Amino acid sequence: MAMEDWKVDGKKEEEQEQEQEQEESEQVVNPWVVSAKEGGKIDYDKLIIKFGCQKLDESLVQRIERLTNRPSHVFLRRGVFFAHRDLNEILNAYERGEKFYLYTGRGPSSEALHLGHLIPFMFTKYLQDVFRVPLVIQLTDDEKCMWKNLSVEESRRLARENAKDIIACGFDITRTFIFADFDYVGGEFYRNMVRVGKHVTLNKVAAIFGFTGEDHIGKINFPTVQAVPSFPTSFPHLFHGRDHLRCLIPCAIDQDPYFRMTRDVAPKIGYQKPALIESLFFPSLQGQAGKMSASDPNSAIYVTDSSKIIKNKVNRYAFSGGQDSIENHRKHGANLEVDIPIKYLGFFLDDDAELESIRREYEAGRMLTGEVKKRLIEVLSELVERHQRARSAVSEEMVDAFMAVRPLPNMFA
Amino acid sequence: MAMEDWKVDGKKEEEQEQEQEQEESEQVVNPWVVSAKEGGKIDYDKLIIKFGCQKLDESLVQRIERLTNRPSHVFLRRGVFFAHRDLNEILNAYERGEKFYLYTGRGPSSEALHLGHLIPFMFTKYLQDVFRVPLVIQLTDDEKCMWKNLSVEESRRLARENAKDIIACGFDITRTFIFADFDYVGGEFYRNMVRVGKHVTLNKVAAIFGFTGEDHIGKINFPTVQAVPSFPTSFPHLFHGRDHLRCLIPCAIDQDPYFRMTRDVAPKIGYQKPALIESLFFPSLQGQAGKMSASDPNSAIYVTDSSKIIKNKVNRYAFSGGQDSIENHRKHGANLEVDIPIKYLGFFLDDDAELESIRREYEAGRMLTGEVKKRLIEVLSELVERHQRARSAVSEEMVDAFMAVRPLPNMFA
Repeated sequence: MAMEDWKVDGKKEEEQEQEQEQEESEQVVNPWVVSAKEGGKIDYDKLIIKFGCQKLDESLVQRIERLTNRPSHVFLRRGVFFAHRDLNEILNAYERGEKFYLYTGRGPSSEALHLGHLIPFMFTKYLQDVFRVPLVIQLTDDEKCMWKNLSVEESRRLARENAKDIIACGFDITRTFIFADFDYVGGEFYRNMVRVGKHVTLNKVAAIFGFTGEDHIGKINFPTVQAVPSFPTSFPHLFHGRDHLRCLIPCAIDQDPYFRMTRDVAPKIGYQKPALIESLFFPSLQGQAGKMSASDPNSAIYVTDSSKIIKNKVNRYAFSGGQDSIENHRKHGANLEVDIPIKYLGFFLDDDAELESIRREYEAGRMLTGEVKKRLIEVLSELVERHQRARSAVSEEMVDAFMAVRPLPNMFA
Repeated sequence: MAMEDWKVDGKKEEEQEQEQEQEESEQVVNPWVVSAKEGGKIDYDKLIIKFGCQKLDESLVQRIERLTNRPSHVFLRRGVFFAHRDLNEILNAYERGEKFYLYTGRGPSSEALHLGHLIPFMFTKYLQDVFRVPLVIQLTDDEKCMWKNLSVEESRRLARENAKDIIACGFDITRTFIFADFDYVGGEFYRNMVRVGKHVTLNKVAAIFGFTGEDHIGKINFPTVQAVPSFPTSFPHLFHGRDHLRCLIPCAIDQDPYFRMTRDVAPKIGYQKPALIESLFFPSLQGQAGKMSASDPNSAIYVTDSSKIIKNKVNRYAFSGGQDSIENHRKHGANLEVDIPIKYLGFFLDDDAELESIRREYEAGRMLTGEVKKRLIEVLSELVERHQRARSAVSEEMVDAFMAVRPLPNMFA
């Protein structure tokens, strides 16, 4: 019986995957779980090997600088975006004068975004600006409705609220289309979902995403929803007649499994594989490995936090690599490897010389944790205040305008 | 690990289902496989017990006659529609002056329909006429794209061709909305798919439909697509503000698994369970049990067949219950139980007295197979010619009109 086959085949593939998992490491990274080995931190080099992506090295960063004739983004020079797939192909094509489009997204599971959520959007804005390319942003309200057990209505409301924060990052409305799945799925987009769904077996998604028999069938099919924005034909109002336009996806590396699947299917249905540029996770204030937890408000700085709250959170919760007494600190200096203020400054302090100076002084014990935290509070407060000002200027009409299904006639201009 | 759970749980549930299957019978009936026990015929009584639906008995047929003040359809009085779920509830509501809507559909896997395909549509037209209710007809081009490995384009083309045959059955355009999934999935329809998909586990669909690990994820999710036309909120342009309108689904009994699943989920998401009225399968000319095979053109009469072809197919292939020589036939008479001409006349010869007379004379050996076949050829030729005339009058504009997403303001008038 066919059912018998499933058990046997399913088992084989799952067991292989499990063995691999256990041999290689005990870290788990997928779109819903990011956890390091017991007490350790995420081993990104192992992740690159396991996922089969490539390291984004210094020469590639320099190539981007050369091609765009602009200094590289802080997230590039500091290795925040550290891995990629086929980025060289995208750059080759760009160099030949071919265009591409950007695709990124967000699962709207919470009212307010934290700093970690902003990273892909800040970086995507940079890519849009320097390459002058169109961008599609997917809000997976359907995903969060299923995984977080939110009502359809609440998921849609959160998608719209999150769209405001995304717009506040400064995207160019003449080159940007934001869409929520509950509104946009259908037509060519749905047809592509079926094209993809025809080429991915249940065994395959069980191995990639760890789905089990107790998972709901809506979840099982969701990977097709996140896959198809990689294909220009899913956006006929934007890319009609450009069926082979390449796609570049900036995202955190936990999203890689979706696009490994997508890249596997693409040639089978006559489409280009999307390229990827992938980031580290933004650490929690407590310095635990992996992504921040939405359930603990003190683990993260939110874009809605006041300067006072930021000051309090950093001073109280940001894990310090400094020593336990001033005397010891002056003698031994700080352990930068585990220090969160230094890590956060690495993401958000743009001035390389200043960052290097702080690192040097702090490591030598000449600078104290309190002083480093003070600088971090300034940097974060400025970033968050700027975001809040920008967000308060985002009207409902602007959200409608960004989300309107419309052509973008000058999107490559 | 979660994966381990899946195997164990999946196995348990699957094995239960398999054991049940083997204990009860070796017949398999699901939307893709209809096969009787070796050499036998479908045992519909067992199917009613296994599926948990109810027998549509004489008293219910009389109730329909009474309520509609019209003689019952030949498919009702001859037991072609032989099973139901909650039909009494629908009739109770109708008696109280409450309205309902009809939902039926077709998987467009072939260019031309055969007579078996017409049965649910002929019957649905009768229901629409006598109850004066709106009707939605789903063309599952997405399903056939996946199961028959047709291209998206070919599936859509077949859906449109099949729509012409459906329209030719005489549906009232002021009360009928025909839609194809590749065009209509999205918006409220998609939101309902996710609502349903959140409440059906992979183990559940594996047990109901026999999905295996080698099945594609598009298939795994498809039951949600066929489920949601059962809910009026999937059609906001028709049923806005009537969220609790009841739905009655006329279909062949192999579709029951979809709606068992749907009825299980409905109360969990605050919707009414759809009611069902379910038919036998139309036998092949060769008299094999189960549905006709689309792959053998001589197993069925197609609505595109000429009178000459019909004559040839009936004379050459229709399995006869008559004896092997005229002498034997005169002596022993025909075996009506296996005789296909008699079965076909049971579906399509409306005159009860004439049918009874033919049965009696044939069984007694006074009428020969050739004479019964001659009458059948007349009946089928007339039916098919009428259909062909009606279909040739269906213009592309009429298809567009039936498939337009539009309100039906007088749909209950």
